[in-house]
Amino acid sequence: MDSVKVGLIGFGTIGAGVAEILLGKAETIARTTGKKIELAKICDKNTTADRGVAVPPGVLTDDMSEIFDNPEISIVIELIGGVDVARTVVLRALEAGKDVVTANKALIANCGPELFEKARSLGRTIGFEASVCGGVPVLASLQTSLLANRIESIKAIVNGTCNFILSQMEENGADYQDAVKEAQRLGFAEANPTLDVDGTDSTQKLAILAQLAFGAAVDWKAIPRVGVDVVDALDVRYARELGRRIRLLAVAERTDEGLELKVAPTLIPETSPLAKVTNAFNAVQIIGDSVGELFYQGWGAGRRPTASAVCSDVIDAALGRTPVTFNSLNLWSDQREGTPLKDAKKIEGRAYLRLEVDDRPGVMAAISDAFGRRNISIASMIQHASADAENPRVPLIILTHAATNDALEDAIAELDAAPFTHGKTARLALLD
Amino acid sequence: MDSVKVGLIGFGTIGAGVAEILLGKAETIARTTGKKIELAKICDKNTTADRGVAVPPGVLTDDMSEIFDNPEISIVIELIGGVDVARTVVLRALEAGKDVVTANKALIANCGPELFEKARSLGRTIGFEASVCGGVPVLASLQTSLLANRIESIKAIVNGTCNFILSQMEENGADYQDAVKEAQRLGFAEANPTLDVDGTDSTQKLAILAQLAFGAAVDWKAIPRVGVDVVDALDVRYARELGRRIRLLAVAERTDEGLELKVAPTLIPETSPLAKVTNAFNAVQIIGDSVGELFYQGWGAGRRPTASAVCSDVIDAALGRTPVTFNSLNLWSDQREGTPLKDAKKIEGRAYLRLEVDDRPGVMAAISDAFGRRNISIASMIQHASADAENPRVPLIILTHAATNDALEDAIAELDAAPFTHGKTARLALLD
Repeated sequence: MDSVKVGLIGFGTIGAGVAEILLGKAETIARTTGKKIELAKICDKNTTADRGVAVPPGVLTDDMSEIFDNPEISIVIELIGGVDVARTVVLRALEAGKDVVTANKALIANCGPELFEKARSLGRTIGFEASVCGGVPVLASLQTSLLANRIESIKAIVNGTCNFILSQMEENGADYQDAVKEAQRLGFAEANPTLDVDGTDSTQKLAILAQLAFGAAVDWKAIPRVGVDVVDALDVRYARELGRRIRLLAVAERTDEGLELKVAPTLIPETSPLAKVTNAFNAVQIIGDSVGELFYQGWGAGRRPTASAVCSDVIDAALGRTPVTFNSLNLWSDQREGTPLKDAKKIEGRAYLRLEVDDRPGVMAAISDAFGRRNISIASMIQHASADAENPRVPLIILTHAATNDALEDAIAELDAAPFTHGKTARLALLD
Repeated sequence: MDSVKVGLIGFGTIGAGVAEILLGKAETIARTTGKKIELAKICDKNTTADRGVAVPPGVLTDDMSEIFDNPEISIVIELIGGVDVARTVVLRALEAGKDVVTANKALIANCGPELFEKARSLGRTIGFEASVCGGVPVLASLQTSLLANRIESIKAIVNGTCNFILSQMEENGADYQDAVKEAQRLGFAEANPTLDVDGTDSTQKLAILAQLAFGAAVDWKAIPRVGVDVVDALDVRYARELGRRIRLLAVAERTDEGLELKVAPTLIPETSPLAKVTNAFNAVQIIGDSVGELFYQGWGAGRRPTASAVCSDVIDAALGRTPVTFNSLNLWSDQREGTPLKDAKKIEGRAYLRLEVDDRPGVMAAISDAFGRRNISIASMIQHASADAENPRVPLIILTHAATNDALEDAIAELDAAPFTHGKTARLALLD
C-alpha cells in the first residue's frame, strides 16, 4: 500500500487533535482510502507538555528543519496560528517541495495571494478547509459540489464564541460581560477574546468565503465590521419583542452594483434557520441559482471538529484530489474571474440603533431631523419613560428603513456629538 | 483549454435542468474550472417536446448509439430513472469506455455492487451525488470531508414529498389525503406517489448512505420500513401535545450489536434541528466521532437542485477528481470494510402506537396484558372517552419504552386480531 509521510508544526489544542486522529486512526483511514498516512514528525517549541496523546519515540522535535529537510515528508500541517511566523513556515514548506495544510484563517485572509501564487509557481498546494467553520465542510462544497452554481448570497455564523455569548444573553438574560465570562469559563472564549468579539475573526473568514464563492479578492480590513461587543441585554430583549434574534452575521451578497460584504450583529427573523443556531455552533446559509437555499450547521471550532477538517485536507492531498481542485480554481489569482466589490459606503440596509438620550422635550425632534436631512426613513422608535427622576436618561431604539452605510454613519456621528446623547450609538443590522 | 464531451440520456425534468446548466453556463464553468464541458448529445425517445431549453441543432437524438459510439464523448449522464433500462444504459456506457453520472437512487440501491464492480473492472467511474438529497452535497461529504471520522449515526429526511405532506398536516391540520392532493397540485408529489409515501424511496436512499458512511452492503428491502401513509391527523396533534413533530426519518446508527437501519415516521423532539425542517426540504444530521454533530438542509429534489448535483459530478469527472475518490473508496466491494448489520428483529426503540378500540370495560386490561406478556413496558396511554354513544370506538395512543422490533410486531399482531380493535395499529417511532 502507498504511504505518505506528514509533518505537523504546532502541537497545541488543534495539533493534539490532529495527532490523535493521524496516530490513532491510521489503520482505519488506510483501509478506507487505500493510502497509509504516517505522522512522521511533530514540531513544537514545547516538547515536554502532556497533550494527552501518546506520541511514538523520535516523532516529537523542536527543530522545524527536521520536517523541511526530510525528503520523505510530502505534507506539512501548519497549526501555529498568527500571521508572521506561520507565513514563514508555510513559505518554507512550499519551497521545500511540500504540500501545505493549514487551519489559519488570519494567515489565509492576510497572505492568500502571496501564498497561493507561491504554491502555484512551485507546483504545490494549500489546503485550508479548517480555516472557516471548523468541521463544517463549507469550503469543500464551494470548491467542488457547488461549482455549477452562481452563488447569490452567503449568510454565515462563523464565530462560535460570539454565538455562544449571544445565546447566553438570549437564554439567560445575561449581560454581555457575564456572557463573556461564562464563555471563558467553559473554554468557548480565550482569555483575551478581542479578535472574536470585535468581529475581526468573522471578517477574515468572510474574506475567504468571498474569494471562494465570488472570486472576490478583498482586503478583510476594508469590510464594514461591527462586533458583538456593542450588544447590550436591552438589544436582545428588544429583538425578541420584534420577533427576531441577534446573531453575528457575516454576509456576502451579489447585487446589481457589485458584491456586498459586511459583518454585524444582525436582528434576523426568528423563523430563519440562522436564528435557531444556538450555543457555539457555526452555520452557513448559501443561496445558489441552481441549488437554491442550502444550510449547514456544525462545530466551527474546538480540538476535534477542527482536526476533522485538517485531516480531511491531509487525506485529500495524500490521495491527489487537492492538486486537481487547487490547479483548476486558481484561487487568489488574476486568472480567477471575480465579482467586483460594491463600495462599502453605498451598501444599503436596514439598521437597528440604540442611543442613550436625555428624556426631555426637543430631543426626539432633533434626532428625527438628523435622519430626515439625510433622507433616512425611520420605521419605528421605541422609548420608555425614565423611571429615575434623578437620572432622566433613557435608551432609545430606532429602526430605520433601508439606508446607505454612508448616510447612517454620518447621522450617527452627528448624534454622538450632540449634547443630548450619552456614549456611542450602538448600530446593529436588521434583516427582514 | 481542455475540452470534455458529455452525452445526456433522458431529457425529462432533471435532464432539462442539466441541459440548461451545461448549455447555458458552459463559459462560466470553463472560466472557473479551467475545463470546457460540452454537452454534445442529448438522447430521448421524445425529440419534439418543448423543455424550455434551447438545444443547438444536431444535439438531440433518439438513438443512444450516437452517444455510446461517439469516441469523443467521455461522460454519460443517465437520467432515465427506473431500474431495468437504466441498468442496461449504464452498463453499455461503461463498456463503451465512458464515465457515468446518474441521479438514480433505485438503480444504485438495487444494482450498486454489479455496476461498481463493472466500472472498476473497466477503469471507469460512477458519480451519483444526485441520488440522495438532490442538491445537498451529503454524499460528497461522506466520500471526502468526513473521512477522518468514524460515523456514529445518520438521521435524515431524504424524501421531500413526505416532508411536505407532514408539514401540511402540521401547519394546516390537513388530513393525510388532503395533504397528498395539495402536494400533487404543487408538483411535490407524483400522480402515483406510492414509492414516496410507503417509504421505498427513503429506504433506498438509506441503503446508499449506509454503504458510504458505514461500508454496509445492505439489501434495501430488508430494512424495516414504515411510510407516511400510516400517519393520521390525530397523530400530528398528539405529537404536538407531546412536544414533538413527526418526520419521516431514515436512521442509520452504530450500536454495540451492529448497524441499526430503519425508516419510519418518527416523533422527534421539537427542539431538534430535524423537527424544524418544513416544506419539501431534505435534511441530514450526521454525527461523527471527530466532527460531532453536523447538519445539512436543502432541496432534495426538483429540476434545478438535482441538476446542480448532477453537474457537480460531471465537473468532478471532467477535472479528474472522481477517479481518485472512486478508486480509493472501493464502494460496494469486498475490499471495503463494513459495519455488520444488526438483526432487524433485535432493533430496539420506543414506539408510538395508535389503535382504534371499543370503549368498553376490559379492553385496556387486555391491551396492557398483551404488552406485559412480552415485557414491553408502556410509558403512557392517551384515551379520550367516545363522544358518540352510537359508535363507541375511540382512538387509543400508546407510548412504549424501548422494546425490540420483534416483540412489538408480535404484540401488534395479537392486538390487530383481537375482537375489540378495528383496522390495523399505526406504529410510529419515538425519539427522545
